[in-house]
Amino acid sequence: MVMRQADEIIYLDHAATSWPKPPEVLDAVSECMRNSAANPGRGSHQMAVQASRVLFDTRKKLAKLFHIKNPNDIAFALNTTGALNLAIKGFVKPGSHVIATSVEHNSVRRPLEYLKRVVDIEVTYVDTDESGVMDPKRIQDAVKANTSLVIANHSSNLLGSILPIADIGEITRKKGIKLLVDAAQSAGILDIDVERMGIDMLAFPGHKGLLGPQGTGGLYIHPEVDLEPLMHGGTGSQSEAAEQPAIRPDRYEAGTQNTPGFAGLKAGVEYILHETTEKIHNKEWALTQRLMDGLLSVEGVKVLGPTLGEQRTGIVTFLAGEADPSEIAFILDQHYGIAVRSGYHCTPLAHEQAGTSATGAVRASVGYFTADAEVDALIAAVQEIMKHYR
Amino acid sequence: MVMRQADEIIYLDHAATSWPKPPEVLDAVSECMRNSAANPGRGSHQMAVQASRVLFDTRKKLAKLFHIKNPNDIAFALNTTGALNLAIKGFVKPGSHVIATSVEHNSVRRPLEYLKRVVDIEVTYVDTDESGVMDPKRIQDAVKANTSLVIANHSSNLLGSILPIADIGEITRKKGIKLLVDAAQSAGILDIDVERMGIDMLAFPGHKGLLGPQGTGGLYIHPEVDLEPLMHGGTGSQSEAAEQPAIRPDRYEAGTQNTPGFAGLKAGVEYILHETTEKIHNKEWALTQRLMDGLLSVEGVKVLGPTLGEQRTGIVTFLAGEADPSEIAFILDQHYGIAVRSGYHCTPLAHEQAGTSATGAVRASVGYFTADAEVDALIAAVQEIMKHYR
Repeated sequence: MVMRQADEIIYLDHAATSWPKPPEVLDAVSECMRNSAANPGRGSHQMAVQASRVLFDTRKKLAKLFHIKNPNDIAFALNTTGALNLAIKGFVKPGSHVIATSVEHNSVRRPLEYLKRVVDIEVTYVDTDESGVMDPKRIQDAVKANTSLVIANHSSNLLGSILPIADIGEITRKKGIKLLVDAAQSAGILDIDVERMGIDMLAFPGHKGLLGPQGTGGLYIHPEVDLEPLMHGGTGSQSEAAEQPAIRPDRYEAGTQNTPGFAGLKAGVEYILHETTEKIHNKEWALTQRLMDGLLSVEGVKVLGPTLGEQRTGIVTFLAGEADPSEIAFILDQHYGIAVRSGYHCTPLAHEQAGTSATGAVRASVGYFTADAEVDALIAAVQEIMKHYR
Repeated sequence: MVMRQADEIIYLDHAATSWPKPPEVLDAVSECMRNSAANPGRGSHQMAVQASRVLFDTRKKLAKLFHIKNPNDIAFALNTTGALNLAIKGFVKPGSHVIATSVEHNSVRRPLEYLKRVVDIEVTYVDTDESGVMDPKRIQDAVKANTSLVIANHSSNLLGSILPIADIGEITRKKGIKLLVDAAQSAGILDIDVERMGIDMLAFPGHKGLLGPQGTGGLYIHPEVDLEPLMHGGTGSQSEAAEQPAIRPDRYEAGTQNTPGFAGLKAGVEYILHETTEKIHNKEWALTQRLMDGLLSVEGVKVLGPTLGEQRTGIVTFLAGEADPSEIAFILDQHYGIAVRSGYHCTPLAHEQAGTSATGAVRASVGYFTADAEVDALIAAVQEIMKHYR
């Protein structure tokens, strides 16, 4: 197997994790480990206070980005999956009905299927169209008397389509239903305003669009939503009680948090606040259009998701004729040094709708630091590969 | 409030988190973020393969340290609390009886009390003596027909006492009961051999004795023990299935793991394997004896836990006459630049036994890098403070 140095790789797998990170993020992690990584909230000595401040400052930046009033309504988690498990298992009560979409990730589908197995709940997966676009009316039509929660992906991790969260939020607000949004592919890239969009819970990763380190993520929980914690344990507060304290964020953050990771995330969010999501999204969109335009000019290539000119996030998933997507990805990696993801993308229902259940697909995904030349290199490589397949 | 530079602080709070870390740990985190922090297990491109290798190599080192046959029987977690929640909630079935000890941390007690509240289980907390020493016969006497699990802290985080895990393991093996050990205060410090000691599940932190970054920890799960996962979501494997895959460690590791954190943990464990736990424990024990000897010479000071000369981990918890422990800790921090922890220590039953429920206590805890002079500085400071209190 050919192994390249990191700086020789054309990295087009930003939907899995962003790389490289801004230098400020790496510096913040190191600085925190060196100077302020005592145990936050577990002591009153100054280094512990500094560690607590790291976490609180990160919460403040995230609150600013997502228009959250109280930073303490953000609970930190290991990753988006942890945040979604807390939201879903902590909220859904036996006897209730949950609506999710067909483009949800396994981090939504598997907790729901688990709950279906162990308690009496009902789940409806509402279909998008083939390109991953959701008509909010379909969600409205799925609402039943016992519907308590709607779960929607902000952007499909397979198709890059953007779901109309504000419209869905209007429906859930009117009906008195709560809305949980999975921002795995949109946090740091699309504008998110929890108040304006009617979002009651927002699960987000720290290591994708927010440009922070892996091992970070979180869940915004509206002050009127109370969840059963997923983790029970020490919080440094009310330690004599047998129950988790009611105070936020302690209630949802048992055990020692990833202080250096969140120091890095703070730097990532600061970077985004400075650049603005508008600028980031515009740049990523232009890159996807360039990539799509190029791929569509190659005979036999089919691009999934919204058509050229339509809104999407930085994801461009494609099929190259009859070629096995895993083989295409392998050649791209080994021969061209281009990193993309192949196969299935943890979202089986979306694959079904896109007609790629039997094959999987090749997913290229751009980031804010992706250069036009890197996109062009992928196009040229696919052109060359397709010559051999014809 | 006086804020000092990190290098001016006498850090005696290692039981909360170890600090500083060996330089190799910081370097490994940076190197990973720079060169191999793609998403492990989510792609076949070389950087994703490298990220997977980081995680596997860390598992291998941990397996060597704890004498675990198959590294894939280690599931990574955010922290010890996450590991204990997985172990307890994933194992305990309705109708069963669990034995725990009075020196368990809230990360054991709170999950148990939660389960008592939501399903029908029974819990017996077996008392140690006042110094935190456990007679294994007491555990044997507590076993009932429906006992399925014994949970024991390897070392009390309040008293520093060491529990006779191998003796307890002999009892549980004979009775066909499983044994879960909380190694929060012993991993990287005391010798742990899961086979020899009869440990079926071992929960450990990455950021304390193992010298890794915060945001790391894990659970060893004996191959014959099957747990319901705590997190359901994407694993990069069998992504078309609605259930978590059965394969380990994927079954227990949904979502993106903290790759840079575990790269750092690998360096920490390598450091310990090189130094040996025997050498580390001996050094820490000598430091505790020096500290105890000095503190006991101050009139009015009472040291909790095992007496001078007896085995203990690096924890020395004390009361200074009638003085409020929080005030003592505050003065130590502000006036002397000495970081200790005061108040309650997330272990209410142990406080009850030690007679400190009303007051809390001051906890000093040493690490492998603690110098004699730092211990002496604490003794001198307590001497000086006590003059004012008499």
